[in-house]
Amino acid sequence: MSQLENVRDLLKYHGNAEREVYLDLENSAPVPIEVLEEMLPYFYSKAYGNPTLTHKQGWEAYETIMEAAGFVAKLIGASSPEELCFTSGEAEANSLAILGPVSGRKGRIIVSTIDPLMILLPVEMLEKKGFEVIRIPVDPEGFINLDEFSKAVDKNTVLVSTSIVNNEIGTIQPFKEIIEIAREKNPDVIVHMDASDAYGRMRFNVKDMGVDLLTLSSYKIMGPRGVAALYVRSGVRIEKVIEGPIGTQALWPGVENTPLIVGFKKASELAFKDFDNNINHMVRLRDTLINGLLSIDDTILNGPKGSKRAPDNVNVSFLHCEGESLTIELSFKGVYVSSGSACTRRILQPSHVLTAIGREYEAAHGSILMKVSRYHTVEDVEYVLESFKTAVERIRAISPTRRM
Amino acid sequence: MSQLENVRDLLKYHGNAEREVYLDLENSAPVPIEVLEEMLPYFYSKAYGNPTLTHKQGWEAYETIMEAAGFVAKLIGASSPEELCFTSGEAEANSLAILGPVSGRKGRIIVSTIDPLMILLPVEMLEKKGFEVIRIPVDPEGFINLDEFSKAVDKNTVLVSTSIVNNEIGTIQPFKEIIEIAREKNPDVIVHMDASDAYGRMRFNVKDMGVDLLTLSSYKIMGPRGVAALYVRSGVRIEKVIEGPIGTQALWPGVENTPLIVGFKKASELAFKDFDNNINHMVRLRDTLINGLLSIDDTILNGPKGSKRAPDNVNVSFLHCEGESLTIELSFKGVYVSSGSACTRRILQPSHVLTAIGREYEAAHGSILMKVSRYHTVEDVEYVLESFKTAVERIRAISPTRRM
Repeated sequence: MSQLENVRDLLKYHGNAEREVYLDLENSAPVPIEVLEEMLPYFYSKAYGNPTLTHKQGWEAYETIMEAAGFVAKLIGASSPEELCFTSGEAEANSLAILGPVSGRKGRIIVSTIDPLMILLPVEMLEKKGFEVIRIPVDPEGFINLDEFSKAVDKNTVLVSTSIVNNEIGTIQPFKEIIEIAREKNPDVIVHMDASDAYGRMRFNVKDMGVDLLTLSSYKIMGPRGVAALYVRSGVRIEKVIEGPIGTQALWPGVENTPLIVGFKKASELAFKDFDNNINHMVRLRDTLINGLLSIDDTILNGPKGSKRAPDNVNVSFLHCEGESLTIELSFKGVYVSSGSACTRRILQPSHVLTAIGREYEAAHGSILMKVSRYHTVEDVEYVLESFKTAVERIRAISPTRRM
Repeated sequence: MSQLENVRDLLKYHGNAEREVYLDLENSAPVPIEVLEEMLPYFYSKAYGNPTLTHKQGWEAYETIMEAAGFVAKLIGASSPEELCFTSGEAEANSLAILGPVSGRKGRIIVSTIDPLMILLPVEMLEKKGFEVIRIPVDPEGFINLDEFSKAVDKNTVLVSTSIVNNEIGTIQPFKEIIEIAREKNPDVIVHMDASDAYGRMRFNVKDMGVDLLTLSSYKIMGPRGVAALYVRSGVRIEKVIEGPIGTQALWPGVENTPLIVGFKKASELAFKDFDNNINHMVRLRDTLINGLLSIDDTILNGPKGSKRAPDNVNVSFLHCEGESLTIELSFKGVYVSSGSACTRRILQPSHVLTAIGREYEAAHGSILMKVSRYHTVEDVEYVLESFKTAVERIRAISPTRRM
């Protein structure tokens, strides 16, 4: 049976659960109606031209894109909209941030062992081309070892690329210290930070940080997929990685995607509107989920607790419980989550993040990753906890690795 | 005054014309309501997961993407959906097609002088890295010189990249002959064809053609922007150009954009539904437009006439008439077109296509490019012709280069 037939079979028997709670915001997000409504006119009735400045639809597009760039630039403390380059997604933005500044050069690149694949894979590409790559280890909660980092930054270091918030276990890195240390050891080093999991969940300011390049993702704040932005500090030399006609965005070719940019702007606006209340709400839901899940036997929290953890991130390992089976079981209950299990990932290893913080194969294999949003309710979380209790029990009962 | 202030000023005085006719389909397109309606549920209520195969929203996404790939693959005669890779736009697809197959190699690359910048610019990138680039000249109607082409393909040639239909002047190249000649002179050469302006306007079959790589654009058939596809013949070796987590699309990283892929599929379906009637309708509108415009004094058609011209393409030069002023004047009448004038393009030269077919500076500068669609009507075209007559007269009256 082909994979497509398998999937059709699963869908045939799926049915509709009494409640649906989508917590797989790491991998994709539904677009909230208020964001979609803002985008809609730009598909067909407004500003649908290329901002080439020759007619009304183009002028409207130009105005719309410049205003969106200005809006997002201001939120992160950039000096001007020109420091922001919209790309067609976060993988594109991160590849540009990593491949772009070192083009035609040689030297050392520093990342952490738990950075997302969007960072680690382009860096591997450079390693194959002769760059030396240092992967800084982390402690059991995922914090970068600053001593090792400090020792690693030398005169040959051309690039440091890491993330402010780890996307899998929610660790908020000491990103200001990382940048300070890098600058102190080598004033010429380019520092890139992936802020995909930080934007909208904490306040930061690119100028105060002194960062050179910073990635913002749209779908990670429940904006549409297919758009992201790279902040490029004025004066930083960076080359394009793919080529084509350039419009208003200096470093990424192609026709600007006005409807998606508008959605990204609206999602940014909503993420920062009533910010403190939203964050407190997310932290409350996060901790209710974490505490509820940890009350199940043989569970381990992955990543730190409290204020050093991203307000939306929940990652728990269920021992003697196969992650893939658990996600499927939960799906039938309308609870949508993902797992760091090897089986659910197209790459054949279990989550490199969980292995890097010292989790054994079984704990990595039985891990579940969830992210809450301002749209989730206390009732959602209660339903999720109930669903987990029966699902884990059922999977453990039929699991060959269950505790005797 | 900044460019943004300029644009705001223009919009302030613009007002609404009695009719709006958008003909700048070369540079962007409004999404037809029937396409948008198909896309909408996928943003928020259906298949909004990442096709990672761990829950319902992901399974639905997987099924949706595979069905779309199968649908488009069938339309172009590909052997299987796996031969189709969705990318985040046509610039991405063309850069992948050009940079991907020659990675780590050296040799000769052949293009034509009138290929779109999406081809010429990535090829220039390779030229700077040591590849030898041969640009085959074209005749005054834009047809590639097959003798010169045949002489150019040698044992060192690694890649031929050109377009089936020229995007600016509508010339339908003898693409089958081009591929046959390339194969005959060097069986190992990789042949890439950009079909962005051919798809939906003429029938072709990748297997009959024997092409290795072929680009399909969504917005060029009035699907949404931000999605395109590269056909990669099974067995062709091609490397990724940017890196990141790989989902269902083997050569382009990032979360698959299900709503846009659904829109691309729907637009493809509509383009091929009632195909012959649609094409006849477009040809009728095209020829009415061309003939009407050529009845204005001192005008020249750019590109061929009749069946060797794409059914949607109109490109006419108005002598003693500045293209940019004309597009602005027409915009105030609700007619949206673009120009090959240097002033309307961010690159500082007038259209390289018009110079390559031998147009003098003035003719290139006064050129107007339009594309008609199945949605345009005879009344639209009549309104456009009327608008042109008064606009050209007015611009010529105030133009410093006007005929005495």
